[in-house]
Amino acid sequence: MTAPLDFSNWVCPAPLRDYPAIVMGHGAGGKLSAELINHLFLPAFGGPRGPLTDAARIEIGGARLAISTDSFVVRPLFFPGGNIGELAVNGTINDIAMMGAQPLALTASFILEEGMPLDQLGVIAESMGRAAQQAGVTLIAGDTKVVDRGHGDGVFITTTGFGLIPAGVNIGPEQARPGDAIIVSGPIGLHGVAILSVREGIEFGAPVVSDTAALHSLVSAMLASGARIHTLRDPTRGGVAAALNEIAADAQIGIEIVERDVPVPPAVQAACELLGMDPLHIANEGKLIAFVARDDAERLLAAMRAHPLGRDATLIGYATADHPGVVVARTGIGGMRVVDTLVGEQLPRIC
Amino acid sequence: MTAPLDFSNWVCPAPLRDYPAIVMGHGAGGKLSAELINHLFLPAFGGPRGPLTDAARIEIGGARLAISTDSFVVRPLFFPGGNIGELAVNGTINDIAMMGAQPLALTASFILEEGMPLDQLGVIAESMGRAAQQAGVTLIAGDTKVVDRGHGDGVFITTTGFGLIPAGVNIGPEQARPGDAIIVSGPIGLHGVAILSVREGIEFGAPVVSDTAALHSLVSAMLASGARIHTLRDPTRGGVAAALNEIAADAQIGIEIVERDVPVPPAVQAACELLGMDPLHIANEGKLIAFVARDDAERLLAAMRAHPLGRDATLIGYATADHPGVVVARTGIGGMRVVDTLVGEQLPRIC
Repeated sequence: MTAPLDFSNWVCPAPLRDYPAIVMGHGAGGKLSAELINHLFLPAFGGPRGPLTDAARIEIGGARLAISTDSFVVRPLFFPGGNIGELAVNGTINDIAMMGAQPLALTASFILEEGMPLDQLGVIAESMGRAAQQAGVTLIAGDTKVVDRGHGDGVFITTTGFGLIPAGVNIGPEQARPGDAIIVSGPIGLHGVAILSVREGIEFGAPVVSDTAALHSLVSAMLASGARIHTLRDPTRGGVAAALNEIAADAQIGIEIVERDVPVPPAVQAACELLGMDPLHIANEGKLIAFVARDDAERLLAAMRAHPLGRDATLIGYATADHPGVVVARTGIGGMRVVDTLVGEQLPRIC
Repeated sequence: MTAPLDFSNWVCPAPLRDYPAIVMGHGAGGKLSAELINHLFLPAFGGPRGPLTDAARIEIGGARLAISTDSFVVRPLFFPGGNIGELAVNGTINDIAMMGAQPLALTASFILEEGMPLDQLGVIAESMGRAAQQAGVTLIAGDTKVVDRGHGDGVFITTTGFGLIPAGVNIGPEQARPGDAIIVSGPIGLHGVAILSVREGIEFGAPVVSDTAALHSLVSAMLASGARIHTLRDPTRGGVAAALNEIAADAQIGIEIVERDVPVPPAVQAACELLGMDPLHIANEGKLIAFVARDDAERLLAAMRAHPLGRDATLIGYATADHPGVVVARTGIGGMRVVDTLVGEQLPRIC
């Protein structure tokens, strides 16, 4: 018998000691998630062999591949604007696209709960097929497992995507540099508020619909503009705030945004005011943030606005050499505030 | 609101009609699994765009890649001989190796249940790191999600693997042909009986330990022998019976094995007799079946027996042009019986 059923030899890494067990916040994309990855998974997986990122780069036969994997556990499975199926396709395509890569293929693995209605599964599968087809991506491999009733939640979907990084494209969080202009592709907060409204049964003025979309064709149009794009990031879990903080840390730059320039739809604003949330922390599933050489910002904005998914693209701020690792926002009344990442969850199981 | 909360338009494909919802058997790798994949997922994903197999082949930059994804939901998480972590690494490496490919990299995505003890997760992650390192494979990307207590089961792990298919290697289920010798790499049934013994609290004579292992170095040794290997398959869920039936169907060949030549350890035999199961249906996690040109069988057996993971390799039968799609076994008393695939589960959540 070699089963290690005695765990007393396992030494809990220091930053995790406050939590003997997993809490919801470990999956929220904030500081707790980062602790779990940096202090439990990465050392176990061999330490300095490189960061466990959402999208990795590897070279095969002279081609540069971007590879990304994501599990989708969104609740409810169906929400205004989409369902878990297209989210699982679009979300992984977007992680690939944020490396500047053209997505080629996806795998999909399903963990089904006993009792999951077949008609719901059928609609989800059809949504996936449609989303993949629209994106020009092939579903090449899959797996299906079933767990007993009460040990799953309808369906969880894990997608893994592969894309080709075009020659000459070198986009990554570490490429952002002081002076870069920061552009967001459109209004923020729609996915998070859509989930929230259906989960909590609240309406915030106009019905809010998830922005789930595959962004690779927008990225293609952006690359074709010739603008010197340094960094792309889709602000999903943790919202724009988490995305900007990660880039500030990875590139060791400061970031300064102008709060009133960030496009926040009225219904998102209303939801945030009602529930005491910050729109910068709300998840998006069809938006991107671009860091671009300052002189190329106008050209990039023009290219983005000519694309349906970027028609509301807006300049929201600049990277700076000051306060590296820190994101600040100029507020409506002229002050400055630090835009931090949340510790744990604002809204669990958002994607 | 575009959420498709009315499912009345969804037309249930005919062979699934007996089941309005998912049952455990849909995940057991038998006939119900095949129905779900062939009649629900494949049509939804675009029909004739190729089978949704466990390992796919794509060409990138002149290189031929094998890609495979698998979700692991084994219960219990720790079992004699291993845990879910190394199973998730070895299982996906093996799917890649069964294409004759050399595995390069893995992604790993975790669905954690609130309340999962961190020490157990730490030990699982360390097992994954060790298994990957032993196999010479890098864990390049990952994701972590958390679901509420009672909506998961500790941890589910989805791994996706990438491997390079060497030039000249063309191995696949459709390559098997009449006359091929059929070799199994060692004693069967160990993983399934190990899980069963710990889950049911039964001992079957000697303690039975899972055979979980990464088989790619055995495959390398087999390829180096120069034997004309046509097909490789690791007989996991559904056991040797399911693997042989799938190959018989894909290659449109008949298969004839000699029951007493199949290596069944005494404890596996005892468990099967006690519980009324067929060793050919029991899962393995460190064995492979090879179809090889008859004249090369001895050479391949010698190469396999020189490798630690193949030292008990045994010839168990031949492919035939008779009864295409049907697997038969010559029994101990000289008769013949059809070796069928199970409809649903013999033992759910085996991997």
